[in-house]
Amino acid sequence: MPRQDLEYPREPHSTVKRYNHQAKYDLETIHGIVNAAPILHISFNVPDSPFPATLPMLGHMGSFDRPSADIGDVLEVYLHGYVSSRLINSARNSEKGLPVTVSASHIDGLCLTLTPNSHNLNYRSAVLFGYATVVDKLEEKLYAMEVITNGIIPDRWRNTRTPPNAAEMQSTSILRVKVTTGSGKVRTGSADLDKNYDLDDEDLVKRVWTGVIPMYTTLGEPVPRGDNRVTELPGYLRDFVKETNEDAKAYAYDAINVEVPKKKQDDDA
Amino acid sequence: MPRQDLEYPREPHSTVKRYNHQAKYDLETIHGIVNAAPILHISFNVPDSPFPATLPMLGHMGSFDRPSADIGDVLEVYLHGYVSSRLINSARNSEKGLPVTVSASHIDGLCLTLTPNSHNLNYRSAVLFGYATVVDKLEEKLYAMEVITNGIIPDRWRNTRTPPNAAEMQSTSILRVKVTTGSGKVRTGSADLDKNYDLDDEDLVKRVWTGVIPMYTTLGEPVPRGDNRVTELPGYLRDFVKETNEDAKAYAYDAINVEVPKKKQDDDA
Repeated sequence: MPRQDLEYPREPHSTVKRYNHQAKYDLETIHGIVNAAPILHISFNVPDSPFPATLPMLGHMGSFDRPSADIGDVLEVYLHGYVSSRLINSARNSEKGLPVTVSASHIDGLCLTLTPNSHNLNYRSAVLFGYATVVDKLEEKLYAMEVITNGIIPDRWRNTRTPPNAAEMQSTSILRVKVTTGSGKVRTGSADLDKNYDLDDEDLVKRVWTGVIPMYTTLGEPVPRGDNRVTELPGYLRDFVKETNEDAKAYAYDAINVEVPKKKQDDDA
Repeated sequence: MPRQDLEYPREPHSTVKRYNHQAKYDLETIHGIVNAAPILHISFNVPDSPFPATLPMLGHMGSFDRPSADIGDVLEVYLHGYVSSRLINSARNSEKGLPVTVSASHIDGLCLTLTPNSHNLNYRSAVLFGYATVVDKLEEKLYAMEVITNGIIPDRWRNTRTPPNAAEMQSTSILRVKVTTGSGKVRTGSADLDKNYDLDDEDLVKRVWTGVIPMYTTLGEPVPRGDNRVTELPGYLRDFVKETNEDAKAYAYDAINVEVPKKKQDDDA
C-alpha cells in the first residue's frame, strides 16, 4: 500500500451527489472494485448519435512503466474487447485520446425492509473517467495482454501458449485509458431501519420479512473441452475456482457482519 | 409470446459490428437479458463534460398502457435510482426526453483455450437506446414501482407496506425510457477450437487445460434484520432464492450443453 492513501480529485462529473457518506475516492478502493469485475462497461460519445455507445469489455488496471505498482497507486486501465472496432478507430483518431467512462459494479446483497421505498442493495460500484488510446508499443501490448489474462485467471498466461504470434498481435487491439478522475460507492450493512410509523405497526412487522439476501458470483465445476488432454484440473485453476468462490461468498456475508453459514442451504440448486 | 417475433431496427449505433452471428435483435431475447439483470448501467451525455455519465440503476421493463404485454412486445424501461438527481433534472429539461443508453450484461462462463488470444466468455449482453422522461402520473409511477420491486423479487410488493405514502411518492423519482432501438449479443458453447498449429503441438495440448468454467450468480441464506419478527422465511422468498439459484446455475451449464453436476464441489466455499 502507498504510504498515504491516494485519492482522485473531486470534479463535477465525478462527484457522488447523493448518499455521499457512501462515496469513495481513494484509489485502492476504486481500483479494487474495477479489478474485481470480470467485465467493465465502457461508454463514449459517438459523433452522429445523441446516445453514448456502451460496450462490455475485458479490462484490468496496471502500470507498464512501474509494473510493481500497488493497487492503490496511479494506474492505467488496459482494455481488450472484440466489439470495439468503432472504439478503436475513435481512439486512434482523437489526439489526446478518446474520452471514455469506465464502469464496474458488483451486487453483494438485497436489503429488504418493511416498505419497498426503503429497500436497498449492498453493492460496490466504481466509475473512472479518462482518455483511451491504442497501445502500439509491442512490449506494452504484451504486458497488457498478460495483465488482462491473469487479471481474470491468476497465472493463466504462463500456463498457455505464449507469447501470441505475429498474426495474433496484429489482430488484437489493446486500449490504455489514462485515468483523470473517478469515484466509487460502497454500501454494506443490514437493511436500513424503517420509519417509526412502520416499525410501530404490529400487523406489518409480523407479516413482512426484513433482512438481507446475500448475493455473490459462483464459479461452477470446470467442464473440459472435448479434446482436452489435461485429465486432472491444474492446481492454479482448482485454486482459482475455490478461492474466487470463498472470497465472493465471504464478502457478501462480511458486508452484513455475519459468518458464512457452514451448511450450504444457499446452494440447494 | 407475440405471434411473430418483433425485432429492433438495425441502426448504425445499434448494429453489432463484429461476431454478428452472435447478434440478437428480437425483443424477447433483448428484454429478457435486461430483466434478468439486477442492475442496469445508464449512460447519457453531460453538457460540460467530454465523458458520458454512467450510473448503475434498478430497472425493469413494462408497459403501463398494456400491463399484460409480453416480454417480446414493445415495452418501456422503468428506472429507479438514488444517485440520479443529475439524470432526473436532465430528463425533465429535455423536450422529447434525455437520450440514454441502457446496458445489461451477464457472464455465464469463462472459455479457456490453448492460447490467451482465443480465450472467450459465455455471456449475454443487451443495450437499449431511448429517451428518458420523468414519470409524473401517479398511477404510472405506482405501476413502475411495483414492476421494479417485483422485477427483483417476485411478489415482494404486496408482501410489504404498500402503497407508498405521499412523502415516499414525492421523494421517489421514476424514469420511463421510450426505447427507439437496441441490440443484444449472446455467446454460448464450449471453448473455441484452437488453430491447427496449436492443436498439433503435443507438448502444448498435454500441458494446457481447455474448457469452460461456468459462472453464475448465487443468492445466499437470507439473514434477518435484528428486529425482524417473521421467524420463518416466507414461501415466496424461499422460492425466489431456490429458483433464482437453480435457474442461474442451469443456464450456465446449459450454455455448454452439460447437465448441472449433482455434487456441489463448485460451492465448496
